[in-house]
Amino acid sequence: MKIEIITVGDEVISGHIANTNATFLANTVYSLGAKVTRIVSVGDNAEAITETIQEAIKRVDVILVTGGLGPTPDDLTSQAAAQALRRGLVVHTGYLKNIKEKFQRWNLTFTPSDEKQALLPERAEPLPNPIGVCGFQLEEGGKPLFFFPGVSREVKTIAQGSLIPFIREKMQNEGTIVCSSLFKVFGPTESGVKELLKELEGDFELAYLPSFPEIHLKLTVQGNNPREVEAKHNTYAKELSKTLGIYCFGKDNDSMEGVVGTLLREKGMTISVAESCTGGLIAHRITEIPGSSDYFIQGAVVYSKQAKKDLLEVPSSLLEKRGPVSKETAALLAKSIRKLSKTTLGVATTGIAGPTGDTLEIPVGRVFIALAAPDTLEVKQYDFFGDRSQIKLIASEVSLDRVRRYLLSH
Amino acid sequence: MKIEIITVGDEVISGHIANTNATFLANTVYSLGAKVTRIVSVGDNAEAITETIQEAIKRVDVILVTGGLGPTPDDLTSQAAAQALRRGLVVHTGYLKNIKEKFQRWNLTFTPSDEKQALLPERAEPLPNPIGVCGFQLEEGGKPLFFFPGVSREVKTIAQGSLIPFIREKMQNEGTIVCSSLFKVFGPTESGVKELLKELEGDFELAYLPSFPEIHLKLTVQGNNPREVEAKHNTYAKELSKTLGIYCFGKDNDSMEGVVGTLLREKGMTISVAESCTGGLIAHRITEIPGSSDYFIQGAVVYSKQAKKDLLEVPSSLLEKRGPVSKETAALLAKSIRKLSKTTLGVATTGIAGPTGDTLEIPVGRVFIALAAPDTLEVKQYDFFGDRSQIKLIASEVSLDRVRRYLLSH
Repeated sequence: MKIEIITVGDEVISGHIANTNATFLANTVYSLGAKVTRIVSVGDNAEAITETIQEAIKRVDVILVTGGLGPTPDDLTSQAAAQALRRGLVVHTGYLKNIKEKFQRWNLTFTPSDEKQALLPERAEPLPNPIGVCGFQLEEGGKPLFFFPGVSREVKTIAQGSLIPFIREKMQNEGTIVCSSLFKVFGPTESGVKELLKELEGDFELAYLPSFPEIHLKLTVQGNNPREVEAKHNTYAKELSKTLGIYCFGKDNDSMEGVVGTLLREKGMTISVAESCTGGLIAHRITEIPGSSDYFIQGAVVYSKQAKKDLLEVPSSLLEKRGPVSKETAALLAKSIRKLSKTTLGVATTGIAGPTGDTLEIPVGRVFIALAAPDTLEVKQYDFFGDRSQIKLIASEVSLDRVRRYLLSH
Repeated sequence: MKIEIITVGDEVISGHIANTNATFLANTVYSLGAKVTRIVSVGDNAEAITETIQEAIKRVDVILVTGGLGPTPDDLTSQAAAQALRRGLVVHTGYLKNIKEKFQRWNLTFTPSDEKQALLPERAEPLPNPIGVCGFQLEEGGKPLFFFPGVSREVKTIAQGSLIPFIREKMQNEGTIVCSSLFKVFGPTESGVKELLKELEGDFELAYLPSFPEIHLKLTVQGNNPREVEAKHNTYAKELSKTLGIYCFGKDNDSMEGVVGTLLREKGMTISVAESCTGGLIAHRITEIPGSSDYFIQGAVVYSKQAKKDLLEVPSSLLEKRGPVSKETAALLAKSIRKLSKTTLGVATTGIAGPTGDTLEIPVGRVFIALAAPDTLEVKQYDFFGDRSQIKLIASEVSLDRVRRYLLSH
């Protein structure tokens, strides 16, 4: 099944925001085995929307359109869709009633301009949208078109309730069974991963999806016998996992911080962090995981020399002799935060994220990362490459990965 | 001048990564007054690339293509471009020599497959790319086509060196003078901003670009007399600034954390933060700014009750009586971190980011934010809406905005 995604809105084609709706929809249908062949973004321009819909109908089986369904004059998608399909634009009374009820329930004032949202192309039917008012679908020459609003939360809700069940059923009726999974890798470069996997062959597709600083691999097996497809997929997945070894930190929706959190919880261990160059990013990532308060006790962002001295008892003599960016300082920070927080593990970073702050001895990108544990105190030196944000990000990733590797071996 | 952007790569149409190259290029040319009318993404598929290039040439004046220039068999852009333009594909000897030299300089092994990167459509010319090997341009029927690699850093470098000067000159030759600026707003909703600005009228375009949790407004004035365009732009910009008032925190490339940093530096003040529900995000944002070590002393991520007690001396009795998520705890955290860090300002957050952790008394989204300063200790209660990440983000934004407002009035 071929799918085309059309996104409408000046904010995307003027480059002001990333096209996250298209990314979400593409990823959603791809995981169900359908193929997105094209993503087209146009502005709030009726002619361009009309043209794009007409072109897409010629090319693909299903069309997903987002944006331009709101009440303001620059919301033109319904009107353009009607024109593209040579249909009238009519008030959908059920839809209008539903909008009015929602406005009442949410204590919003219904104005005449809001009525515009119920103007749909003839023979269109509303898509259930419990958290908003817009969204509809229609069929043209046997091809379904889904129209989503531009608000990401609503796109996700409507996709969950209407699009996913539709695609899943369609794929089953077509007799195409798809089994896919995502492998998340951190450590080697893309060519390093390719080298590792060069012997791996078989009846599968393997897509390389770089996602800095990680590499994600999508394994897909297709066929028409459900049991066979699943069995094949599981065999290849097992082989892939085995070959990737320690570099593969998770699958599908796993994140590095989520995997670390699960391991900490399983082992009944706790963690604290002392961050200099990562500036709070490790703590921020750990606390993105719901329930992280069970194992994350505290973080110290000891940005200044004074903070390193006062809070984590790094002596002035060490800071003067070795400098704040040194193996010794990193080690002491990890040890001190672990002791102060009474946690199983303590992690510390110190380095130069740049672009300023480098010296003759210490270049931008040099970072020391220390891990203090009951049985060890490991410090390593890294030289990362990139801008300030990238250096912070990769240093936080290495820190979390070091914790993951420690937990796996204990 | 109308521009179309074509991005090539399975990673985008499978929804695995956001199309950041398109966003960057669109934003770049838009700021120079050129108009991106369409962004099209296709996969690593020669036929689709060929078709897309042929369609674009019919529609627009300049075409920007990214991705698919590398050495692997799924890099098909050069070949597809040659076919789209009915040209041969030939080894560009200067380009090849240049690639070989770079490989030598960077200690990389040049393999036969790397030679493929010098196979360009006839009459194509390399684009200077000091940090990579790929990129070329050609002309078809007087219309320039730029071909960029898929690596974001290289896209930015080539845009800076070749694309921006080209577009700028072309716009000047066409006699179109554009003056635009971006206004960044935090506080009111989009309809609130519209209400504020409803009296503002004139010979300008104003685009609303939501960028959660902020709203960005792009003011654009066009004309053919440079002095007139600039004068008009400045008048409208002044009026806009005045009307937006305190809600407008910055312009163009300003960020909330950057503006706060600049104000702190100007006033010679310092800051420290004690974060519970924001989990390090405020510190992370402050330290995204180069040179932030001048005013940011330290952050404490006091995630557990124990950390609140030990590090910031919140007494057990208060935690039991009022709870860790309370006005009193927020106030004490701000006061303590300020005292401990000897900073001018101390900021603290405590709340429920969800999705778990709510109680009958305290719903998900309830956050207390405190600001301790030499002359005041202000605590406010907020009820935010969204998922865990959004609640953390908006709480960090409000915290920074509170600091900004304090600094502006002192």
